[in-house]
Amino acid sequence: MADQPLNLTDYIRDVPDFPKPGILFRDITPMLSHPEAFAQVVTQLSEQFTDAKIDVVAAAEARGFIFAGPVAMNLGASLVPIRKAGKLPFTTVAYTYDLEYGSDTLEIHIDAIPAGARVLVLDDLLATGGTIEACCHLVEKAGGKVAACAFVVELTRLEGARRITDYEKISLIQYG
Amino acid sequence: MADQPLNLTDYIRDVPDFPKPGILFRDITPMLSHPEAFAQVVTQLSEQFTDAKIDVVAAAEARGFIFAGPVAMNLGASLVPIRKAGKLPFTTVAYTYDLEYGSDTLEIHIDAIPAGARVLVLDDLLATGGTIEACCHLVEKAGGKVAACAFVVELTRLEGARRITDYEKISLIQYG
Repeated sequence: MADQPLNLTDYIRDVPDFPKPGILFRDITPMLSHPEAFAQVVTQLSEQFTDAKIDVVAAAEARGFIFAGPVAMNLGASLVPIRKAGKLPFTTVAYTYDLEYGSDTLEIHIDAIPAGARVLVLDDLLATGGTIEACCHLVEKAGGKVAACAFVVELTRLEGARRITDYEKISLIQYG
Repeated sequence: MADQPLNLTDYIRDVPDFPKPGILFRDITPMLSHPEAFAQVVTQLSEQFTDAKIDVVAAAEARGFIFAGPVAMNLGASLVPIRKAGKLPFTTVAYTYDLEYGSDTLEIHIDAIPAGARVLVLDDLLATGGTIEACCHLVEKAGGKVAACAFVVELTRLEGARRITDYEKISLIQYG
């Protein structure tokens, strides 16, 4: 382990024209491939909420799951998956939201969140904010209270933070 | 924390007729909701490979990601996501395999696995074995060596283990 914190942006790869021409994708897989970098991300995400009395860490598939497991463990919190429609086996609460083209539906198990539980909603990326906003609505619909939203990467130019101004928000890495 | 190990099957919910009539689905979400149970699963998965010199933990989306993060951290290994076609941004190696109806394609980043690296392939469930077999082929195609396959739950009646007889295989919970 390095004594100095790593510069996490060194572990993000810029991939031009993904998922479509003109988009510069910030690829976090090099960060996952480096155990020290991944551990630092997990530690930094967790440390922010040590005293926040988080009961539940909720995350949307698929990349959100990667960080939610170790952060939930660090916080001694429940891990609650938020999934695309039709993926969760038990009775669900659903929330449909608009995308650039069409719409998408996310679901959460109806009994996943104890009434009034304090929920940290986690995702790898804050871009336009549509997914995180949907996740927060879903958590509230399921009876939880959103304590905060946390991200590894935030694309500030896309102003996704404006969709979740009701909540505390942290991100470890910002790109303008 | 309990001193006695938990009975992990207490944290699996049986959901009848999912994803289709006649199928009894073993739902691991209660296990994720109980921090002690989740921690025990992660510890038991990791302990089996402490001395196995694992360089990489590879897992297929989406549920595999939940366990792969903390296990990779415990082993000091890289975490490499295996994803459905079109999800990974960089150049990929792909593998297409037959499903009951149709086919599916999984991908891995071409530079994700150092040549000859020892890879633990992890998933939540071993059922018919199609997905794990595809993951193992993909890991080898990408230059890795499959050191073992590990699962939280194994449905032994479906005989998925017969698809991966070339490799060491462990599962924490077996249903007949």
